[in-house]
Parts: sequence; C-alpha cells; structure tokens
Amino acid sequence: MRHSIATVCLSGTLEEKLRAAAEVGFDGVEVFENDLIASPLRPREIRDLAGELGLSIDLYQPFRDFEGVDGATLAANLRRAEAKFALMAELGADTVLVCSNATPAAVDDDGLAAAQLRLLAEAAERYGVRVAYEALAWGTRVSTYRHSWELVRRADHPALGLCLDSFHILSRGDDPAGIRDIPGEKLFFLQLADAPRLRMDVLQWSRHHRCFPGQGGFDLAAFTGHVLAAGYAGPLSLEVFNDVFRAADPGRTAADALRSLTVLEDALARRDAPRDGRAAAGRPSVALARLPEPEVPRGFGFVEVAAPAATAGGIRSLLAALGFAHTRDHRSKPVQLWEHGPARILLNAADPRLGHTWDGAASVTALGVDLDAPERAAARAERLCAPVLARRNDPSETRLQAVAAPDGTALFLCPSRDGGGEEPWLADFSAAAVEDVRPGGGPALTGIDHVGLHQPFDHFDEASLFYTALLGLEAGESTELASPGGLVRSRALSRAGQGPRIALNVSLVGDGPRARAAGGVQHIALACDDVVAVAEAAVAAGLRTLPVPDNYYDDLAARTDLPPHRREHMRQLNILHDREPGGGGFLHFFTPLLDGHLFFEVVQRTGGYTGYGARNTPVRMAVHRTERAA
Amino acid sequence: MRHSIATVCLSGTLEEKLRAAAEVGFDGVEVFENDLIASPLRPREIRDLAGELGLSIDLYQPFRDFEGVDGATLAANLRRAEAKFALMAELGADTVLVCSNATPAAVDDDGLAAAQLRLLAEAAERYGVRVAYEALAWGTRVSTYRHSWELVRRADHPALGLCLDSFHILSRGDDPAGIRDIPGEKLFFLQLADAPRLRMDVLQWSRHHRCFPGQGGFDLAAFTGHVLAAGYAGPLSLEVFNDVFRAADPGRTAADALRSLTVLEDALARRDAPRDGRAAAGRPSVALARLPEPEVPRGFGFVEVAAPAATAGGIRSLLAALGFAHTRDHRSKPVQLWEHGPARILLNAADPRLGHTWDGAASVTALGVDLDAPERAAARAERLCAPVLARRNDPSETRLQAVAAPDGTALFLCPSRDGGGEEPWLADFSAAAVEDVRPGGGPALTGIDHVGLHQPFDHFDEASLFYTALLGLEAGESTELASPGGLVRSRALSRAGQGPRIALNVSLVGDGPRARAAGGVQHIALACDDVVAVAEAAVAAGLRTLPVPDNYYDDLAARTDLPPHRREHMRQLNILHDREPGGGGFLHFFTPLLDGHLFFEVVQRTGGYTGYGARNTPVRMAVHRTERAA
Repeated sequence: MRHSIATVCLSGTLEEKLRAAAEVGFDGVEVFENDLIASPLRPREIRDLAGELGLSIDLYQPFRDFEGVDGATLAANLRRAEAKFALMAELGADTVLVCSNATPAAVDDDGLAAAQLRLLAEAAERYGVRVAYEALAWGTRVSTYRHSWELVRRADHPALGLCLDSFHILSRGDDPAGIRDIPGEKLFFLQLADAPRLRMDVLQWSRHHRCFPGQGGFDLAAFTGHVLAAGYAGPLSLEVFNDVFRAADPGRTAADALRSLTVLEDALARRDAPRDGRAAAGRPSVALARLPEPEVPRGFGFVEVAAPAATAGGIRSLLAALGFAHTRDHRSKPVQLWEHGPARILLNAADPRLGHTWDGAASVTALGVDLDAPERAAARAERLCAPVLARRNDPSETRLQAVAAPDGTALFLCPSRDGGGEEPWLADFSAAAVEDVRPGGGPALTGIDHVGLHQPFDHFDEASLFYTALLGLEAGESTELASPGGLVRSRALSRAGQGPRIALNVSLVGDGPRARAAGGVQHIALACDDVVAVAEAAVAAGLRTLPVPDNYYDDLAARTDLPPHRREHMRQLNILHDREPGGGGFLHFFTPLLDGHLFFEVVQRTGGYTGYGARNTPVRMAVHRTERAA
Repeated sequence: MRHSIATVCLSGTLEEKLRAAAEVGFDGVEVFENDLIASPLRPREIRDLAGELGLSIDLYQPFRDFEGVDGATLAANLRRAEAKFALMAELGADTVLVCSNATPAAVDDDGLAAAQLRLLAEAAERYGVRVAYEALAWGTRVSTYRHSWELVRRADHPALGLCLDSFHILSRGDDPAGIRDIPGEKLFFLQLADAPRLRMDVLQWSRHHRCFPGQGGFDLAAFTGHVLAAGYAGPLSLEVFNDVFRAADPGRTAADALRSLTVLEDALARRDAPRDGRAAAGRPSVALARLPEPEVPRGFGFVEVAAPAATAGGIRSLLAALGFAHTRDHRSKPVQLWEHGPARILLNAADPRLGHTWDGAASVTALGVDLDAPERAAARAERLCAPVLARRNDPSETRLQAVAAPDGTALFLCPSRDGGGEEPWLADFSAAAVEDVRPGGGPALTGIDHVGLHQPFDHFDEASLFYTALLGLEAGESTELASPGGLVRSRALSRAGQGPRIALNVSLVGDGPRARAAGGVQHIALACDDVVAVAEAAVAAGLRTLPVPDNYYDDLAARTDLPPHRREHMRQLNILHDREPGGGGFLHFFTPLLDGHLFFEVVQRTGGYTGYGARNTPVRMAVHRTERAA
C-alpha cells in the first residue's frame, strides 16, 4: 500500500517536512493548511517541489465548520471553500478534508447539513476536487463515523465521501466493525493515529498525545482491517499531533513514522493470510507487504560496556568480585570478554564514541542478541528503517550484522551456537593472557536478567517500537518513578518467559543536566538463583553493595512478615525486596554508580515474579544521588 | 499564620528539601514517607536537623488503605500503623495523614469503617499521635469531605479528626461552604494545592498537575476562608505534586511556594477585614498577615535592551527608522536613551550579563514600571521573596529599587513624574552628544504595548505569579502556539485597560537548543494609532519589515471581507490582521530577528481588541525560522 504522512506530524518549515518525508521513503503527504500559509513557497512551487521529491499531495486539510449553518454563514463558507479549491488546483491536491462543525452554533438538522454538504460537493466538482467529510470526536452535532456516513449518504454526490480517522473513532470507544458496511468507493481517505489510553478531555488528548501506530493502546490492525475489508484502496496516512514529534528532528520522526506503518501493514498482511487454504472473508483487494518473520532472540549473547581507563579498573574489580572471569581478548581491538556462566560482558577500552555521547562516562554501548536466523533479522531490520552500522572489523573476523537503536546503542544480531559448539563471534577472541585472567567462580549467575537504558526525551516511543518490532518483544505498561531529581517513566520490553528484557527509562522533564540528575543512568542486571549467596561472596571478594537506608528495613518490617533474622541478613547485605500479588518474589542488590552513569544489579526472581522491583527504585535513586553529591 | 510545605513538593534528598524549606522561611514541613524511607538519616536525626533549622514537623504522610477491611487485613494494618506511630515518636511528628481506602477491596460499610478508624485512633493515642483522616477524590468508598467527616463523627475519638485538602475537594466540584459546619477542633490539618482546570482523570490530574495557590484555576481564598471560619488554627500547608517542581531547584521552588502562601494569606486578610465597621460573620480567630497595598503601574517607564556591539548598530538603525530619537546618555554607563513620544528604550552596550545569560545575544534585560508609590511596591516585593538586585549605581544617581524576576529580568520600580515634571530617573541621563542624535519623529507611537519574554521551562508558573502578585496584574488563559520547532505556551499578564502588559512564553518541550528553535525569543511591541502610516514611514526610512508569505494574504482573502486594495496594501507592508468576535481589530507588523533572539513589533488596536494576534504568531515564527536558517 502507499504510505503517506500529514505535514503536521513533523517539525520544521513545510519544505523541511517534505524533504524529511521523501528522504525516508514516504509516497505522499497531507498538506496541513497552517504549514502552507506560513510557507514562502507558493502552492505551485510546493507542487513542483513535491514532484521533484517523488511525493504526491494526497490531501489538503483541514477545512472547518462548514455545514449546519445559517444562510449568511453558508455563503461565506462557500466563498472560503472555493478559494481553497482554487488553491488546491495549483497545489495539485485533489482531496480536501472537511471536519464536522465544532462550533456551538452548529444546527441540529441532518437534512440541512446534508444539503449544504451537497452544495459543497457541487462546488468542489467544478474544481476537480473531492470532499472527504470527517466526524470529529468533539463535533457539535456530528461526532461518529456512522453519523458522518449518514450525511454523506443523504447528500449523495460523487464528489463527496468520507475521511475516517482512527483516533476520532477509537477514542470514543465506537465499534469500527460497522465500517465494513460502507461502500469502499465512498471511503475517500484514511488517517491513522494511535494514542495511549488516557482518561482526559478528548480534544486535549487528540492535540497533544497521539502517537504512531504501535506506540499507543489502540488496535489499529483490527481497525484498518475493517477499512480495507470495505474496499478502501487509498494510502495509509498518518495524522499525529504530538508535542514531542513537533519538536524532534523531522528526519528521525519520519523514519519512526514509516516504521510504524510498515509494522502495521505487516500485521494486516498476516491477518489477511488465508487460513486452512481458504481466503478470509472480506479480504481486501490491495496488496499488503509483509516483513521477514520476526524471531525472539534466545537472550543476550553479550552486553558491551565502554569505559574510560580511569573507570575500567573499577569495572574489572567489580566483575571479578561478582565471580566473572576475564577469559578472552578481542584479536584486533582492546576489548576484553568477561564471563560468568552464560553471562558475558565485553569491556571496551577504546570505543570511538567514548567522550562524545555520554560525556566520556562508562556506558552500555552495545547489546548482542542470540538469534537462530540473524540474516532474516537483518533483512527485517533494514525494512524497519534501522540504520545499519558501518563495519570496521578486520576482514578475517566474523561478519556480525549490527544496527543502531534510536538511543545510539548498537544492536548486534549474533548467530546462536549450532549444536554443542560455541557462538561463531567468539572466534574473534583469543584466550586472555594468563597473567591477566581472574579466576572467577563463586555462586552461579544464570545470565543477564535485563538491561536498563536511559533514553533521550524525544525518542522514547520510537525506541519502544524499534526494539519491540525488531526483536519480537512486547512493551509493558509505563511506570512512573519518583527520583530526587524528577519523575522517570519506565517501560519494560520483554516476551513472557523468553528472550532478552530491556527496560527503557526517560526523564519526564526533558533533557539537559536535570535528566541525568533524575535518573539518566544505565544498568546491567545479572540473574541468579541465590542472591544472598552471590552478595555474600561478592562482599567477601571486596564488592561494596549500594547502602540501603535502615529506614527502608523498618518500613519492610512494618509492611511484610519477613522473619526478623532474614530481614537483618538482607539489611547487612543491602538486599531489597519486592513481592507481587500472585506470590512472585524479587530480591536484589545494587552497586554504586560508576562515572555517575552506570551501575550493576544482581536479581533473584521466585514464584514467577515478572516485574523489576520498581517499588525500590526511588530508594536506589536517592542513594545514588546522595553518593554522587558526596 | 504558620506556613508549612510537604517535602514531596521539592526536589532533592530529604536533607536538601528541609534545608531549602528552612532557608526561605517556612515554619514547618510535612514529611513524605518515601522521602524518609530513602534517607540515610534516621528519624531522630531528621528531628534534630529540623530542629536546628527551626522547622517543626507538622505532619507525617501518607498512611494508606487502612479502613473498611476484613479482620486479617485490619490486624496487619494496625501492626503497620503502630510501627509508624513509633517512628513518629522518634521523628517528633504528632499528626499522621490517613487517606481513605482506595483499593477495590474496600468494604461499603460506614459503621465498620468508623469502628476501625476508632481502633486506629485508640492505638494512636497510646503513642501520643493524632490521626487526620482525608477523603481522597478517588477513594473507593469515601471520596468527599462530608463522608470523611461523617466517619470521624461516628468514630468519635479525640485522637481522630480530619485533614482537608483543597485539591480533593475542589477537583470534584464539591461545595466547600459545608466545611463551616464542622467543629474547628476536628480540623486537624489543612493541605493546599491549586490546579489548572483540566478535564482528565482526577488521579493523574492530582499526581502531575497540581500547582501552588494562585497558579491554577481554583478559588483558594474562598476555600481557605471556609476552613478558617470553621475555626481551623493550624498551619497553611502546601501539598503539590508537580512534574516540573519535582525537577526544579528546591530553593527556587520553596521561594515560589512561600510567595504563593503569602499572597493567599493577604487575600484572606482582605476578605476578613471588617466592612462598614462591622466584623464579617464567622471571622477566623487566627491572625492574618497583610501585604502592603498593591499598585498597578501606569505603564512601562522604559524597556532596557542589552546588545553586543555587533548588534547595537542594527538596533539603533531600527529604532531610528521607527521614529525614535537618541535623546540622552547615561552619566556613568554606556546606556543610550531612545525616545519616541512616551515609548522609551534604553540601549545598554555593556550589561555585565551579556555573554552569559543569553549566549551573548541582544536581549531585554530590564523593565521599568511607573509607580506612584515605588517604596510601597519595594516593601511588597521584599515580602514576596523577590530577590533585591545589588546596586551598582554612582551614589549621586537616583536610587531606583530593582528586583529580579524569575527569568532574570530586572524589574525597576520607578517613581512616576510628579505634576508636570519628568521622572526622577531621567536625571541620571544627560543630553546626548549632538552629532549622535538622530532626529526621530514621523507617525506617532503611543507607548510600549507589551513585552514578550521567553521563560525557562521550569519557571513559567513561578514567573506568572511573581509578576501578577508584584504588579497587581491578572493572568489570562494560556494559549498554545505551534512553531516549526514545537509548541509554545503563552500567557498574557495585564489589567484590563491599565498598566503594562507582559506576555510570558515557554516551550512545551523543555529547555535546550530546541527551546530556542521553538520560539525562545523576546520581543518589544510598540503601540500606535495608525500602523500603516508607521510601516510606510519606517520602510521609507530603510526598515525591512518581516516578510509575510503571500499564502497568508490568500487565506486572509478567503476568510475575511477586507477590501482587496486594503489587503494589497497590507501585503506590501507585511502587515498582519486579527479580529475578535466582539468587533475588536488588530493590525501589526514585525521586524526580523536580531541575534536570533530579539525582535520588535508595531501594533494597532481598534474597537477594544484585547488579544495579541496569537492567530498570526505561527506565521511569524515560521518566517523567523526560515530567516534564521538562511
């Protein structure tokens, strides 16, 4: 299907918006009237520029408050409309969006409104223009697609049809299945927007909180399925009003937008695929593009940490105290492999990004995920507009595909070990020099439980969609955590019981120094089956666990029935506790911050605990802040 | 009255919060439990620190989900409560906030809930603690103050009373007048929060959007008046959950908070003042502090612009083209006075803040306001925690009081001219050297219409309260404007028909480079009675008015009945147009940006137009952006 985007989704001038949409591969745009009015380019120049860029102008929008008015207003509205139709001829746009009247003066008379819409359609026809009538969720008289269709049906003019907007329909909780009953040729345009499920005034919700499909709470595949089943064959077009997108780089937003449509179209293609050899009923006639099959990785093959020399020593000591052994060195780069059972950390002393991206602080720079079919994942990543990272490896080395996540983290698509052998990428490492090997050992770690990554303010939803679409993960609910420096929003990406877990965090107050104070940190959480044993061994080996205030343990005593000796033992080791209603339990401890930016955690899950100890995060944040200030 | 603040209002660790509250002059605090749990300070150490700082601990909060539960839960809740009561004894807090049960399991049985609250009060009494029971607006069974009072009345225990929270009552639209019927000795605590009027889920509204009294849409003077009339004699205490405050500097937030209570108490004192010699009914017994009388300034005595040498020449040419004459020079500083009728601009070539605060760009650094009683305004400013600016003047010069507004702008409190003389501060200026005087003249300007000031993200509400409280202005509704770089919120401060107008603008996406791209600019709007004549003269004198796209005038033709020749004339001069439903009209033009940060505007109001041409602002922003990029 063709992919289109409304210029209001992107930041910048109209010219910047058009260039960003074309650059990433959109087929067309909706021109938002305010963008045109503020542009120094005349309509014909805009048409020429779009043509040069390979973009069609699929819609001109919006035209407001036309129908259900008195005679004098009707005359003025028709004059206003004809001026816009003439402009559209210059612009090369043949469809105009007309929103249902949202003024208090709108008359409650369907016959009158339909007759006036017919007059509008007759005028439009003279200019070769089609009118796509849309029910705003907050329209004074017309606020549902059924009502807008009733008016269009009564007006009965070939130049008059419907525009359907997923937000206006789904925000009201209307059942979109009735769309199947509308003749396809009357569906002139389809606008798509997702949104988080918020209980708030629908106008404010619409104007500030829309997002791209897959980033909110609506079932857009089901919705769009109904529209296609009715016979709609126009573009999939995004119309998203969002405070963050309005201020973000338009090229990035355009890529995020196109990725969302690609994922949606893939989902539609899968819904549409014949089952049991029979075609689905109401199968759309348009061709739907599919993505290569997704594969949930088996887990983290490795996590790579880049650290300046001043910090690398501390990380080595920390890893050694946690039982990691330094086992191998990269053949061509100053990268050490540290292993403890299935948990692998790469320690990179010369990442070229050090000193740029994170002010030179120790950071998680790459995640390796274990895949049975990494080539297929790479093909999928390419279709998902994932920036492929340039290869700097020696030609003799393993060819690992890597793409850049929105936060700059490199995501390596690693082939899993086949049979009983080891992963191919390990061949790029040779045994570490004996004198530098630390023994490792101690109580077992069972792997990397999750990685916590702080996101730039304007890439949070983008990152969530990126990781979930690429790795076949599911996004959990957002949680808000109160740090001493502000609120942090956190969302976990996982797939129940399988594969890697990634926790994305973002400061609710924007970027800048405050974001770091509010929790702009990264962490690596290591899994084990006996966190007390791991903590005891680590402390014995010289690790300082992050001190947890005694007040925390007093509160734990007040609200749980943990036996006193157990609590006391936890207090001595600085182990924190959480419990889920279903009976799952969580015990964990933290390390101090390295470079004010990175810490490690060791966690033990029992009874099917699915969370991340969010209850304890504010305590951890406060102690980290105190230590940073000291 | 005593002034108190909940630690949850402020950012930082508990110790940082206590120090910030004490520093600015609060009398007490509410200790938020999560702050205590995350603190390395034990309860007794917190008590000692508060004592050293001169702060009482007026409330420990919150204790949740106590009442209306089954027997096993009751036992666990009592055990949990006793642990907290013991802690409070250490902490030196004698009142605990107990919120109405908000869990789905809460039982709908007032008799049971009251009996359980009585058990809680009996336990509290043994520890010397009082229980202040509060109806959460989203409590499962108890969500109104009338209902919470009914339970407290039935429980009938001296250690059990009410906590009233303005947000929980006013957000529901409940009538607070009924508070007068509650015995004063049962009003254990009063929590104050304002909030913008939003139509959204009340829990989210409460957790993210509360603000200090005077910054939202609630009538807190009326509300608090009822509470005092009932006989409440405890502290006025702020409990505000706000995303911005959580991330802002705690010292600034504390000053903002105390200022809000000072203004509120002053309003209460004025309501309470006897009218016609008779005391008001239900007059509270507590002493209320009054502020010195406010005075709305007559207008702007001057606006001062600091400019680096490279830009100052351009500003001089611009002012000269607009008919300003360079009339005087400051006796001791490189500051020029430019005048055109009553409009006065000071041009400062050596402001010590240049190069720091605004990256060296030309900026509005000071506003002078004309006051009949500047000493009284200065006394009022001091009571409002306004930072008094250090004086660097020569001793022979006029003693002007100046305070710093939250955005760093200096606010000079200037004595008005007495009789027919000139303002005293003009004596600090001598006649400009003849060879440097520009002639000035041309069509008259009638003064400075308004000044537009971009605000740091986290000081918008603070600035609004500061200017309105200090200058007796009123804050208008917030407007959101779409710039090519993101949304900008704008709020005008004025007093119908009198005094100065100030438009505060803030980027909705936080600070950083994006904020400037999104409209982080300042401007000075000059008033006139014939904007066409001013524009013609200015263009003839060499001014380049900001080019307005032809598309704008096409749209104007479509939606207005302006005669074509008039529109064409406006197009040639780049004059924009707005109209209010009441018939008021607005014509205005802009200059290009100076240093990417400052521009001038000339405006003409007709027919009582009260706005600021917000409809045209996105066009202006887009053209400024295009010019900046070029």
